[in-house]
Amino acid sequence: MRMVDLIEKKRDGHELTTEEINFIIEGYTRGEIPDYQVSALAMAIYFKDMSERERADLTMAMAHSGDMIDLSAIEGVKVDKHSTGGVGDTTTLILAPLVAALDIPVAKMSGRGLGHTGGTTDKLEAIPGFHVELAKEEFVKLVNEHKIAVVGQSGNLTPADKKLYALRDVTATVDSIPLIASSIMSKKIASGSDAIVLDVKTGAGAFMKTVEDAKELAHAMVSIGNNVGRRTMAVISDMSQPLGKAIGNALEVREAIDTLRGTGPKDLEELCLALGRQMVFLAGKAASLEEAEEKLREVIRSGKALEKFKEFIANQGGDASIVDDPEKLPTAAYRIEVPAKKDGVVASIVADEIGTAAMLLGAGRATKESEIDLAVGLMLNKKIGDKVAAGESLVTIHANRENVEEVIEKIYANITIAEQATAPALIHGFVTE
Amino acid sequence: MRMVDLIEKKRDGHELTTEEINFIIEGYTRGEIPDYQVSALAMAIYFKDMSERERADLTMAMAHSGDMIDLSAIEGVKVDKHSTGGVGDTTTLILAPLVAALDIPVAKMSGRGLGHTGGTTDKLEAIPGFHVELAKEEFVKLVNEHKIAVVGQSGNLTPADKKLYALRDVTATVDSIPLIASSIMSKKIASGSDAIVLDVKTGAGAFMKTVEDAKELAHAMVSIGNNVGRRTMAVISDMSQPLGKAIGNALEVREAIDTLRGTGPKDLEELCLALGRQMVFLAGKAASLEEAEEKLREVIRSGKALEKFKEFIANQGGDASIVDDPEKLPTAAYRIEVPAKKDGVVASIVADEIGTAAMLLGAGRATKESEIDLAVGLMLNKKIGDKVAAGESLVTIHANRENVEEVIEKIYANITIAEQATAPALIHGFVTE
Repeated sequence: MRMVDLIEKKRDGHELTTEEINFIIEGYTRGEIPDYQVSALAMAIYFKDMSERERADLTMAMAHSGDMIDLSAIEGVKVDKHSTGGVGDTTTLILAPLVAALDIPVAKMSGRGLGHTGGTTDKLEAIPGFHVELAKEEFVKLVNEHKIAVVGQSGNLTPADKKLYALRDVTATVDSIPLIASSIMSKKIASGSDAIVLDVKTGAGAFMKTVEDAKELAHAMVSIGNNVGRRTMAVISDMSQPLGKAIGNALEVREAIDTLRGTGPKDLEELCLALGRQMVFLAGKAASLEEAEEKLREVIRSGKALEKFKEFIANQGGDASIVDDPEKLPTAAYRIEVPAKKDGVVASIVADEIGTAAMLLGAGRATKESEIDLAVGLMLNKKIGDKVAAGESLVTIHANRENVEEVIEKIYANITIAEQATAPALIHGFVTE
Repeated sequence: MRMVDLIEKKRDGHELTTEEINFIIEGYTRGEIPDYQVSALAMAIYFKDMSERERADLTMAMAHSGDMIDLSAIEGVKVDKHSTGGVGDTTTLILAPLVAALDIPVAKMSGRGLGHTGGTTDKLEAIPGFHVELAKEEFVKLVNEHKIAVVGQSGNLTPADKKLYALRDVTATVDSIPLIASSIMSKKIASGSDAIVLDVKTGAGAFMKTVEDAKELAHAMVSIGNNVGRRTMAVISDMSQPLGKAIGNALEVREAIDTLRGTGPKDLEELCLALGRQMVFLAGKAASLEEAEEKLREVIRSGKALEKFKEFIANQGGDASIVDDPEKLPTAAYRIEVPAKKDGVVASIVADEIGTAAMLLGAGRATKESEIDLAVGLMLNKKIGDKVAAGESLVTIHANRENVEEVIEKIYANITIAEQATAPALIHGFVTE
């Protein structure tokens, strides 16, 4: 088998066989097939697409390119959630204790983030004492006994995907549905999940700019999941403005606590329930999505969800008293209000630019080496559709330095006030098969 | 300027500017832009094509990537001829003295061949004493005084094209009209020609399998030439069977002598006249193509063409007496006839496979390091449309070893005899603007 013939085959619009896809991914992982052939293939895939079978084969080939996490020692259906990425997305912090409170095992492997704010691990480390360094046996024991644990990502997961993603990034082959879908799904499958719930974001702050594109990607991923024996569902959610109000690590932990208590931002709660009900349903803990949602609402009302969060924190060395006393979380030295310059209605909040403003404060990493300031960030006091009077605060900046002129400028440049505007729909659809 | 943005621009079907194309080719030549980005771009070009302006820009950028040969010290219009490559193509050996006999300067830079037979340099070196190692001053002087000289390729011509071609070869991006056309034209322009005549081959033995594809490539090259100020014309010629009768270095020199004397194979003569008349016309030595052809026929009739060939050989240290006594050329130890197995008419001679049969004898190079045997090769005793009786020789093998079973087998496998067949047309068209 010669790589050049496989490139030509795809270029001419033919389907690659399972054996051919394995040859490509194994050869690329071992460094026997060079980048310049793989980038040409990726461009051919960009133009010629892949069939459902090819997508499933590519996903499994990449999943098997490195370690496959074995979670079989954990009882029950392990449902993982994945978001395609947005700004101020605190859903993982909320969903983990929320579904664990319904006796669904949450065995989460989590990494550090590169972007507007930290990853789930960074956010959790805003809790004094909390750590994710767990031995495998400890991790399994915690999940079996308490239904929830988060462990730091280790080992060699999907090296083929890592290489291919880095290559696509510099060869204009990132936005190809089959390549995006197989990249995401390969990681989920290598991480050992039995079922997968996807949050596919759409809008200005998301990778998929239109609802149509987001639905296409969601369908692609759900098909792959179901074709490789992992039941998969997806929610299409709005990212034309940041989700919830908090952008920043400790700030998002507070927001998660509020939401678990039932007093969080409405959009964040709505999305958590939409994703959570799919997780509960796929875990087999409810006969319908409606029943699943009712059970989730019940564990919020009863306080069980919040209790589970405390239990989780304590299990991993954290100070659970921050749940009742969030002032114990890292707090920034300065709070600076950004007042509206005129009366009106908030018409737009450009999500990624506002995220970048938070990163400028130190909430996120621009490069892998950057240090994160867990205390800093932004609180949005107004969201799209909210009335605002001149002088009223649009955003509260939580900073550890006094001079935040560039951040203020960025905020003004990316929040517009008009005479009229309505809030966008949060959920654009569900993809369940 | 970032390469990834330029790949995306082309991927999305937009035109690259002159500046952008120069950035790509200069960066690639210097090794600053990696292969994996250029292969992705090549695949995007394969799908999205290039405009006439882009093709001209790419050609000039590649021409300027290395040395530009300055032939201005040579008087007159320097017309170069290029063939897209075929089997048994002796045209260069014939055309050089033929047009030089009409006082048109032939300043030829020539390399060694990789393929069925050697390149023009190899063929000329079949003439005892002939050499192509000329100092630049000597080369210019010979052309000015005798209108003809061939010098070995030296210096650093179109390094960008060399790199790009090698990359395309392993990334399934060879058969892209804009990339083929700019590759060929960049070399011709860097070699210093004022005007260019192209022989675009079509048929089973050629890179362009159909007449339509060959015409498209010819139009692409003629447009580039005219857009960059080099008058260019093309002939579309047939390569469904080998050209002429000889395949092999010394055998082709003999065939060239015959043709310059007016006693060569008719198809070879016809193609030489078709290409030659465009060369004479572009050199400004005739007011019409008809007049140009008449002048060429006249120098064959008068013996001037053959005299010019002798002069040329003697000037470069060769033994000109081989023209009158071709037995002085390297001669193979064995002549082995391949008899027809039945009566009928020759219906097909698969050009590239017959070429490979000659290479198996040692007539060509499979790799750059291979040694060529100048004496060996094949003589086709029958061409498509010729009647043949069982036992009559189809091919004479000139070999330096007795056992040529695999060559005989290849010949039988690639020459078919049917009840009826007609010779294919040799010239499929002209592209003159």
